[in-house]
Amino acid sequence: MFQIFKKSKISQARLGKLITPHGVIDTPFFMPVATRAAVKSLTTEELKELGVQIILSNTYHLFLRPGMDVIKKAGGLHKFMGWKKPILTDSGGYQIFSLAKMRKMNNQGVEFQSEIDGRKILLTPVKAIKIQRDLDSDIMMVLDECVGWPCTKEEAQKAVQRTTFWAERSKIEYARRNQKSKIKRPLLFGIIQGSVYPDLRFKSVKEITRIGFDGYAIGGLAVGEPIQKAYQIIKVIEPELDKDKPRYLMGVGKPEQIVQAVKFGIDMFDCVIPTRNARHGLLYTDLRFKISDLRLNYKEIHITNAKYRKDFKPLNKNCSCYTCQNFSRAYLRHLFITNELLGQRLATIHNLAFYLDLMRRIRKYIKQGGL
Amino acid sequence: MFQIFKKSKISQARLGKLITPHGVIDTPFFMPVATRAAVKSLTTEELKELGVQIILSNTYHLFLRPGMDVIKKAGGLHKFMGWKKPILTDSGGYQIFSLAKMRKMNNQGVEFQSEIDGRKILLTPVKAIKIQRDLDSDIMMVLDECVGWPCTKEEAQKAVQRTTFWAERSKIEYARRNQKSKIKRPLLFGIIQGSVYPDLRFKSVKEITRIGFDGYAIGGLAVGEPIQKAYQIIKVIEPELDKDKPRYLMGVGKPEQIVQAVKFGIDMFDCVIPTRNARHGLLYTDLRFKISDLRLNYKEIHITNAKYRKDFKPLNKNCSCYTCQNFSRAYLRHLFITNELLGQRLATIHNLAFYLDLMRRIRKYIKQGGL
Repeated sequence: MFQIFKKSKISQARLGKLITPHGVIDTPFFMPVATRAAVKSLTTEELKELGVQIILSNTYHLFLRPGMDVIKKAGGLHKFMGWKKPILTDSGGYQIFSLAKMRKMNNQGVEFQSEIDGRKILLTPVKAIKIQRDLDSDIMMVLDECVGWPCTKEEAQKAVQRTTFWAERSKIEYARRNQKSKIKRPLLFGIIQGSVYPDLRFKSVKEITRIGFDGYAIGGLAVGEPIQKAYQIIKVIEPELDKDKPRYLMGVGKPEQIVQAVKFGIDMFDCVIPTRNARHGLLYTDLRFKISDLRLNYKEIHITNAKYRKDFKPLNKNCSCYTCQNFSRAYLRHLFITNELLGQRLATIHNLAFYLDLMRRIRKYIKQGGL
Repeated sequence: MFQIFKKSKISQARLGKLITPHGVIDTPFFMPVATRAAVKSLTTEELKELGVQIILSNTYHLFLRPGMDVIKKAGGLHKFMGWKKPILTDSGGYQIFSLAKMRKMNNQGVEFQSEIDGRKILLTPVKAIKIQRDLDSDIMMVLDECVGWPCTKEEAQKAVQRTTFWAERSKIEYARRNQKSKIKRPLLFGIIQGSVYPDLRFKSVKEITRIGFDGYAIGGLAVGEPIQKAYQIIKVIEPELDKDKPRYLMGVGKPEQIVQAVKFGIDMFDCVIPTRNARHGLLYTDLRFKISDLRLNYKEIHITNAKYRKDFKPLNKNCSCYTCQNFSRAYLRHLFITNELLGQRLATIHNLAFYLDLMRRIRKYIKQGGL
């Protein structure tokens, strides 16, 4: 399912291909976030034109709306939203702990109240697998207990324990369903928890890798902790991970964080930063990231700034995205100042183009042996 | 500037071509509204793909934001917004009377307070011409005094008088600028006022046609009056209009009103109905308008209705728009229910496709002699 073509000699960076039921993905890669079955403001055609290889969608949100009966009847999430390439679905763990009104949690699962209609819903590891199979996900995530930051060691320890217990249940349900199913089997990823405590992270990675999954995600980072703590945790976990399996750093991050994490051996990323910032008029330009020195530089433009009022240059003259090829900073600024939806669209296209370009360069430099 | 190829023998309908600096437009036509230099949520590429021939933009709004210094420096509105085909610009009269905090009006012009920064602005007929020349408009409208509905006869009479006075000033300024200018001259349209009073409308059309313009607009309708009153007024005006000049019914309207007005001899329409309704999830489908009986029928779909929850049919199976070719009612409903911007986009594309299809059929049936 995962082939590594090249390993860097000067870092842990790897170049590979991840094979999924809906297609093969070059690693390292970045997944735009399509929380509710749409990357905000964009069509799937635009994603394709941008060169997006895979998107991430959200079990928790889709389960609540439109509901699984709708997506099942549509023939899965790909058909529902018109996207033919791979989709990774998170298990809902993160959202339940960050968004839902909690009711009860025990080893069986978590009962929460719907934010839409108030009804009580029980999500178990088994049910999370069932939902993600019904979504026709390419990469499924196990249900985990994701704690915030800061969190006490005791809380983190309990979460590690429960995450392991749920991971075991998930694996069993996954294997059971694969025996019955005729479709190409999706990948199932385990998730490592343990907050910022190195010993707990070490315990978690040992337990999760012992169960065995198609890939491993590092969860519970990018939740507010200093980035240096996150790097420290990645360095604790990485040596314990199976070298032949893909590694996914959930919810990260800024361009420089992605580059750093690739050097630490991470293959997969998702983050709302490029799309959310785009909708707020924060745009990324002037990516300077050359193999000669590997220093990453870029600019952040607040497009509503008065200095762009008569700036008729494109956002980035070297960018080949639809926005840069057709529109000026002055026009984009005008669209944002007057709250025209088109502004959010054009900005989203550009910021995703920037992130995808960054990932392309990362892959190129690993290939050339420089990263 | 305007060529008529066919006149109906059973109604006043006409088939023609309107020649403007940025291209030739088949009449009768409908103009999507791009108030602030964007048809809400759509790119100019999408407008082109839809077959849009001309858009309408708004002098008043563009004058306030981004301001004429920006658009002049961009090289005109076409370049600013990336639209190469014709643009009609209204003069700002309607917006000043409906939106702005009024300060003072006299024969010289109207002084109003900016809704953006509170500064006082004087708009005169001469300035309205200057602004529209700076916008590089293809079809400019004279500044008029547009009264609401209901309005007393005395108010309507004063507005007619002032509209005529301003029309004369506009024509003089327009001619003066044409002598100096080397660019292809834009068209200038006069506007007929007079509210719902037939005698005032008759007076207005006589005065405005005496001055002489490239085309004539009927203003001050579609402002809340019963549609039968509007039809009655069109019938008063139409016989007095130059047969060889295009006629524009401002702000109209619903599909059946457009068909009726074409039969009364109108060639041009603009309205926010298809785009605004789209953003509110009201979608037009099942256009039935055949030459065999010429009865217009269509359906209005409220896409958020629960009955579309598992409706995997396209909005309209016979529609060739991007939305109908790629997405189901169930998916569109989901996008609206979850406030995804993509829903507004896809709905806008579809409703404009519906209106453009209606206009294509109108032209076809005039050609075939049936309308």
